[in-house]
Amino acid sequence: MAADAPSDPIITLTTDFGLSDPYVAAMKGVILGLNPRALLVDITHEVRPQQILQATFMTQAAWPYFPPGAIHAVVVDPGVGMGRRAVALETPRGCFVGPDNGALSAALPEEARPAAGQKPAPVPLPASYRAYAISSPSYMLRPVSATFHGRDIFAPAAAHLSLGVSIEELGERLDTIVALSPLRARRNADGSLAGRVVHIDRFGNAITDIRAEDLPAQEFAVELRGRRVPGLVRTYAEATVLSALVGSSGYLEAALRNGNAARELGVEIGDAAMLRPA
Amino acid sequence: MAADAPSDPIITLTTDFGLSDPYVAAMKGVILGLNPRALLVDITHEVRPQQILQATFMTQAAWPYFPPGAIHAVVVDPGVGMGRRAVALETPRGCFVGPDNGALSAALPEEARPAAGQKPAPVPLPASYRAYAISSPSYMLRPVSATFHGRDIFAPAAAHLSLGVSIEELGERLDTIVALSPLRARRNADGSLAGRVVHIDRFGNAITDIRAEDLPAQEFAVELRGRRVPGLVRTYAEATVLSALVGSSGYLEAALRNGNAARELGVEIGDAAMLRPA
Amino acid sequence: MAADAPSDPIITLTTDFGLSDPYVAAMKGVILGLNPRALLVDITHEVRPQQILQATFMTQAAWPYFPPGAIHAVVVDPGVGMGRRAVALETPRGCFVGPDNGALSAALPEEARPAAGQKPAPVPLPASYRAYAISSPSYMLRPVSATFHGRDIFAPAAAHLSLGVSIEELGERLDTIVALSPLRARRNADGSLAGRVVHIDRFGNAITDIRAEDLPAQEFAVELRGRRVPGLVRTYAEATVLSALVGSSGYLEAALRNGNAARELGVEIGDAAMLRPA
Repeated sequence: MAADAPSDPIITLTTDFGLSDPYVAAMKGVILGLNPRALLVDITHEVRPQQILQATFMTQAAWPYFPPGAIHAVVVDPGVGMGRRAVALETPRGCFVGPDNGALSAALPEEARPAAGQKPAPVPLPASYRAYAISSPSYMLRPVSATFHGRDIFAPAAAHLSLGVSIEELGERLDTIVALSPLRARRNADGSLAGRVVHIDRFGNAITDIRAEDLPAQEFAVELRGRRVPGLVRTYAEATVLSALVGSSGYLEAALRNGNAARELGVEIGDAAMLRPA
Repeated sequence: MAADAPSDPIITLTTDFGLSDPYVAAMKGVILGLNPRALLVDITHEVRPQQILQATFMTQAAWPYFPPGAIHAVVVDPGVGMGRRAVALETPRGCFVGPDNGALSAALPEEARPAAGQKPAPVPLPASYRAYAISSPSYMLRPVSATFHGRDIFAPAAAHLSLGVSIEELGERLDTIVALSPLRARRNADGSLAGRVVHIDRFGNAITDIRAEDLPAQEFAVELRGRRVPGLVRTYAEATVLSALVGSSGYLEAALRNGNAARELGVEIGDAAMLRPA
Repeated sequence: MAADAPSDPIITLTTDFGLSDPYVAAMKGVILGLNPRALLVDITHEVRPQQILQATFMTQAAWPYFPPGAIHAVVVDPGVGMGRRAVALETPRGCFVGPDNGALSAALPEEARPAAGQKPAPVPLPASYRAYAISSPSYMLRPVSATFHGRDIFAPAAAHLSLGVSIEELGERLDTIVALSPLRARRNADGSLAGRVVHIDRFGNAITDIRAEDLPAQEFAVELRGRRVPGLVRTYAEATVLSALVGSSGYLEAALRNGNAARELGVEIGDAAMLRPA
């Protein structure tokens, strides 16, 4: 390796486009056409169509592992073409581009986001963050379609940023961006936690928004679809019966060794997950 | 970035191999074994098995966004091992390799392809295009299998081209290559357009071969499976009921906000799409 | 290309994580955070959950096509967090990292692996191979989770190896690693071959562990789910009826042109495949 030469800029992509359509490839072509040195990495393209909350879970579990300076494009965009803003966000740990609909929530510190239980809303930015509208036509593919800003706006913006274009050149400065409340179960007065299932992974683990640091010291069970799943085991191999464990992102999940916990429980994303002392 | 050094050569891959088998990885290994600097980009590997028409739709929607000089391997190859030619095609905007079965149709200008409604057929090449058979064993993996020319012929050919091997070294010059007619609905004498569904995307949008530039000035509806889908809305968000809009590739599609238009209509790829004034 | 500069180190990834979860992206972020020049290539992430045998089939069909010096991470890890060893293996053709549960079997020569029909077991290493435990915390992400060693142990190990860290720095030397017996049907006294279905590909080809070099000279048929599939055709196009052919990895498979042989036969992975003279 030429260890002295700087490494190529990383651009990650998170979308709900899937891999069976030409959409992701069109974005990659646009990026490489502008910056052939961009190093493209897929976070996932299997966000459920238009599920901004799930996009937040996905990016939150992956982007912090990327080097500072990476550029993250998050394109889950049900309002494309309808006037929602396109936004570029600079953070101390990397840049983000995406629609201003909450898709960039995972880029913000939790304390800056709406409180648990509140709806997505514009929030002011912390001191070391800057947001700009992506509004200058100079940095877009033209003509801009009404249906595919991933290709026409967000891919070019990410590519230009990776080439060293200053974020302020993309458009006017923004005081707020839209954010979702953090993924965190609500604590009730009696000490129970009222959460929900936020993701079901390929192994059938039903991942909730109940945080490791919120778990009680005593034994507990999580109620999912009327069944009580006892906690806490440490590994998947120990989940010889339906069990709760803390997964790799720091959230409580229901797991079943050699099985599929979500199917066994019949749970779906959005279902309630209530944690109570055993 | 070392902005002065030339960037690495791009090779895109479009196949019907899927991502659950080792086939795509074997192709990538072969390419990187020959040229470790090749920058590999997947267009898609989810072309339906042996559907050359769908491969044409996919590549057409993606390859024009890649930089000139990119090399595109398109391997949908039901006749592998049966004597169909392997072909390398040089165009003003990039090189293509694939079986000579129509898989490279999207590389040709539309006027060079068979007229609408005609069967796939060999066509002469425009002035600035050159095609060569890939027939020289020097540029193949050996032994060449009878079942996997993606790995044994097309991956090595793409890699050698990316290393600067001249296209004429691959084999004998060809006067024609096989092409499919362009994706474009037929205009009837009464002004209606007789098209078909060519793709259904992850969002359930039913994409037809009716072109934006062929749309009538007056209001219209598209008939799909006996239902009339009115046009024209501009964005997916406006498709609060089943509606027609022009998608990002310039084709008319039926869409349904927060729904799945194709499922709602019961349409499948190949179904008729008839556009009539409203 | 700067042909004089050495090329970037290749790291391949084979997992059962799928592409709908953030797990693969987290691994990639960790690798690029340590070595931004690593060239990441997916073998597949669609190994069936916790199927080490299938991971072996996948890697065996792909890794030999990669350049010597590539680093291969194979993470199918049902025992994560339970004390099974993490292992790095140096071979004459590349390095491997993964759990010591048989996942690295394809890296070993067949004669070093347990005999056909035997259970997975620790085996001594051939002369030019060296294995080390990955046990030094210096080369792990910290804290190490109990559930995701792909991110916390194997991704960092691969990245450090790609940076030139010596394999012996990762931990203590190992005399043995766990291996599965080779994929090879057993020959009966009467000359018949008793194999099984080891993979079903996207085209519906039912791939067995019967090797091309073990096929009899005379005509034969393979019995699958009580049906006799005659052999041998050379290409998929010739399989106009259910037929046996030798696939691109050198194994006998049942194929059906324009059809799906596995569905037609009703076979599943693990089913018996008995080859008898016709």
